[in-house]
Amino acid sequence: MPPDPFFAGPGLDRADHLRANPAAISALAAHAEARALAWDNGAPALDPDGRLAWQAIEGEPELFLGLDRDAPRFSALPDGAVPIDARAHFTLLTMLRTDEAPTFAAALSLANWHRRHGFCSVCGTGTAPNRGGWSRACPSCGAEHYPRADPVVIMLAEHDGRLLLGRQPHYPPGRYSALAGFVEPGETIEAAVARELFEEAGIEVRDTRYIASQPWPFPSSLMIGTHATAIGDSLTIDHNELDDARWFTRDEVLSALAGESAAPFQAPPHSAIARTLLEHWVDGLK
Amino acid sequence: MPPDPFFAGPGLDRADHLRANPAAISALAAHAEARALAWDNGAPALDPDGRLAWQAIEGEPELFLGLDRDAPRFSALPDGAVPIDARAHFTLLTMLRTDEAPTFAAALSLANWHRRHGFCSVCGTGTAPNRGGWSRACPSCGAEHYPRADPVVIMLAEHDGRLLLGRQPHYPPGRYSALAGFVEPGETIEAAVARELFEEAGIEVRDTRYIASQPWPFPSSLMIGTHATAIGDSLTIDHNELDDARWFTRDEVLSALAGESAAPFQAPPHSAIARTLLEHWVDGLK
Repeated sequence: MPPDPFFAGPGLDRADHLRANPAAISALAAHAEARALAWDNGAPALDPDGRLAWQAIEGEPELFLGLDRDAPRFSALPDGAVPIDARAHFTLLTMLRTDEAPTFAAALSLANWHRRHGFCSVCGTGTAPNRGGWSRACPSCGAEHYPRADPVVIMLAEHDGRLLLGRQPHYPPGRYSALAGFVEPGETIEAAVARELFEEAGIEVRDTRYIASQPWPFPSSLMIGTHATAIGDSLTIDHNELDDARWFTRDEVLSALAGESAAPFQAPPHSAIARTLLEHWVDGLK
Repeated sequence: MPPDPFFAGPGLDRADHLRANPAAISALAAHAEARALAWDNGAPALDPDGRLAWQAIEGEPELFLGLDRDAPRFSALPDGAVPIDARAHFTLLTMLRTDEAPTFAAALSLANWHRRHGFCSVCGTGTAPNRGGWSRACPSCGAEHYPRADPVVIMLAEHDGRLLLGRQPHYPPGRYSALAGFVEPGETIEAAVARELFEEAGIEVRDTRYIASQPWPFPSSLMIGTHATAIGDSLTIDHNELDDARWFTRDEVLSALAGESAAPFQAPPHSAIARTLLEHWVDGLK
């Protein structure tokens, strides 16, 4: 079984079949138990105990998030004028409860998409939310646009018992993590893994295996976690992409995961699938 | 190792690092061995032997597809006014050579994206190809837009040795195939598999496993092929999505894959990852 990254899980019942039925959605918005997600600084607001904050509904919010048992859950589109402070959002993740994370991911990812898709890419006309906020429709050319989830491969490359991890320039000091990159049109998951590892670190790989996936709402990605076997360990680092990349032993990874002060690097946070991949890797070597 | 679906494979060397260097791309376009892809009726043109048709370069084409060893490969954006005849494109796939398929997928997927993304989704202004055609830039708000690969889950659900396959309304007579659906923002691959199977067929699943992936350029998807174990076999079919769904035994699947006249259904074509998944399944049961 794949391990469960943060943000993974069932979340709300999305009740997709209701989205095409505006009358049904209006009736749900008028339901006594219907609530709307509260937003703060461009992200879902949290209670002090790390739960999503919900409030009474005014009017009919643009986004129908789904059902929490029988209780309808909605959200207004957050104020697009609020600049997104990604650093503040990452701080939120240290407080967000695991069982609330899937709904947080869905709401923020959807909101992020709406923020950048107010106009029709086919003809340039302003569009409006449709299907309970799960698409936008163009009143001019009739195109319907659906929220994207951009597939990203993220991978542990292993050679002779050691893992390749890298540092992106924006990482906190000492942090190393799994290399990653967007899947391009015309690629398989395996081809994207091979291309990214060769581009960023100059290594060739075989036997790419899928481990787990994770929705990542910054802004709206699908992280596809994999493990690949490197054919050699000689690195050619693309310094436009990475500050550094190095091979780490299992003991070094264990030390980093344990947060030891003498650890050779700082492990990624619990919200990152890279950490899940590292935990899964050391676990499999027991 | 995952099996290799049609369209999978390395294709051209995408030489991504050159995309940000317009001078390098111009020099490649002027190379003696540089060629541009020929298009016909909105799709890459094929020679009689199923190879992609290339022609001499006039000017500098918008799309830099990559390198075939040292030979630069480009494409002009095909005429957006040509209506896309998907049926004709599927007929092309019966002629397209397997080793040419990855480049066909990349070029058509990229062209399909440009066709529907001439305007900035953030502000509505007309955009222009950038980075050798691997993005479009907005001259007004500065947004850069990257071609999408929409993740789609496609799955074999198994119960007691039988597989669930379904018929979409547009399928040829007798065709049954794996159920499929888009991954939504906020979902893992596994959650999308569970949601789609419950929505379309009313079944619950566990133990979803990744099998293989495939780029699918109609218009621009990443097919993520999986296998899941159904908890029960009682079906509740969503007739808005499916004409029918049924359970098939291994012998029935083998008969369909062999194209026997007495087969209980017509198997998906060799270009579809659904066929790869079926072949992988019967193979694993040997």
